Amino acid sequence: MRVLLPDLPEFRALSQHDEHGVPGVTFDHYRRGHLPDGEADGVVLWLTDAATRTALLATPGVKWVLTLTAGIEHVQAHLPPGAALFNASRLHDRAVAVHALSGMLAAARGLHRFRDAQRRHHWDAPALPGDSGLTTLDGAHVVLWGHGHIGRNLEELLAPHGAHVHGIRSTTPTDERDELLAQADWVVLLLPSTPDTRGIVNAATLRGLKRGAWLVNVGRGNLVVTDDLLNALNSGQLGGAILDVTDPEPLPDGHPLWDQPNVILTPHIASTTTDLVARGAHLTRDFLIDLQQGHEPDGRVTAGRTY
Amino acid sequence: MRVLLPDLPEFRALSQHDEHGVPGVTFDHYRRGHLPDGEADGVVLWLTDAATRTALLATPGVKWVLTLTAGIEHVQAHLPPGAALFNASRLHDRAVAVHALSGMLAAARGLHRFRDAQRRHHWDAPALPGDSGLTTLDGAHVVLWGHGHIGRNLEELLAPHGAHVHGIRSTTPTDERDELLAQADWVVLLLPSTPDTRGIVNAATLRGLKRGAWLVNVGRGNLVVTDDLLNALNSGQLGGAILDVTDPEPLPDGHPLWDQPNVILTPHIASTTTDLVARGAHLTRDFLIDLQQGHEPDGRVTAGRTY
Repeated sequence: MRVLLPDLPEFRALSQHDEHGVPGVTFDHYRRGHLPDGEADGVVLWLTDAATRTALLATPGVKWVLTLTAGIEHVQAHLPPGAALFNASRLHDRAVAVHALSGMLAAARGLHRFRDAQRRHHWDAPALPGDSGLTTLDGAHVVLWGHGHIGRNLEELLAPHGAHVHGIRSTTPTDERDELLAQADWVVLLLPSTPDTRGIVNAATLRGLKRGAWLVNVGRGNLVVTDDLLNALNSGQLGGAILDVTDPEPLPDGHPLWDQPNVILTPHIASTTTDLVARGAHLTRDFLIDLQQGHEPDGRVTAGRTY
Repeated sequence: MRVLLPDLPEFRALSQHDEHGVPGVTFDHYRRGHLPDGEADGVVLWLTDAATRTALLATPGVKWVLTLTAGIEHVQAHLPPGAALFNASRLHDRAVAVHALSGMLAAARGLHRFRDAQRRHHWDAPALPGDSGLTTLDGAHVVLWGHGHIGRNLEELLAPHGAHVHGIRSTTPTDERDELLAQADWVVLLLPSTPDTRGIVNAATLRGLKRGAWLVNVGRGNLVVTDDLLNALNSGQLGGAILDVTDPEPLPDGHPLWDQPNVILTPHIASTTTDLVARGAHLTRDFLIDLQQGHEPDGRVTAGRTY
């Protein structure tokens, strides 16, 4: 079996003849501007650009593709006919859930506004506690929109915080969904980007929220209609937003989201940890051993899956 | 029984003849610049300035003082001879623990640096995950220095994060303490300010930490020798600090702590929540009912207590 891998030390270690290696598999490594020649049975896609990705997917003989991302929308259109697609949600679930909780707690404790004050070298006059806007998550209603592995991780992290946690699934009836959204203090978007989910948070959705609710998006930028989000922030209908993903992404300079005081922005790093590449290589190794032993590896993407 | 209370609506409600009231107690309310005349059996101290506090403690007849703070060092020196002192740690434990976790997670996810980048309208070039500095708390060693109610709350909040949590008590032998500090990724100060704890984090303590560890102070500013802290930050010995309290406090303009990129500052608001005054009034009501029924209320401060 010949497999193409990213050209990173953690992946080069897979061809070693020790406990990190995978016997019986030939590896070649790609980077931007360098693609190995010849046929390959499988491609492991990660940390590359669109042009390299498209070229890799055109490699002759490819029977399977493993993308070490959670999202698949950047791969599906170029998938070779008949090739099996696998993704790696489980590589990212934990850190994304931790990131979502981190943003929520930072907002509840006002850390974004205090950071702005720190830069000005000045605290505003101490407000009476009732006017501070500072809270814990005790008693808050948190709605997890999209309730897969990230949602279950987040639910576990939220458990000691005294919040009421509710999940919305693709099977949740619309009226039940709208009722949950109407009472939410926090709406956390954990959805993938599909034709059904694009723009799912729009002017009507935002109007249906409790005034002052916060939106958390660690799914995909195009789940949210950005102009409608800005209107809801400017009117105070939305209390604030925690956005790891945006539309457009990356945000161009001059975009009005940058200057929203109650928008906590990060550059699509919710799943990033210093050990992410090592964990990705480890997952790849387990995947290849499953294949060699005739087991179906985790993460098979079935056609037509939404969320 | 005549009791002096802060002049806030939530405390005025205690003299109502309904379920919020406390029958058989006469109340008078103080504010800055207005102190009720005459004798009083007890004083509930909160949200006032030093001059008003000192004058209140000189009220004739005072048998007990309830300070609705966790700290007592601002009261002890002026306590009338023979008067019993009570504090209200339990009013603050939960939010302080939530605040400490919030700061730790914000630091782990780089939210302070991303806030600075957001202000500049520009993300730095995406680093490889290994260079991102972003983590979760999985596998981290967290040392809670001072292990009372806040520590137990924080331990509960940390439980699903996969950290190894260790407590240091006043009874912990010095060599054991130093060993715990040497392996800590996070040192969380939860100590009160006493003659034994002032300056407990100094050059020697900081030198004994693992390089790159973070310090969290939600105790009192003078637990830390600020100049030593600044040296440790500037040399990289300390990875960063989360400071809700500082010495001096409030920080004067021009103080070098303001501009430390990896210092996350807040203005002594770790225990503040929008419902704090309501909760303080509720605690006061329970305290007075205990007194009237001849029970010893919670929170009695015994002489010579350290931590």
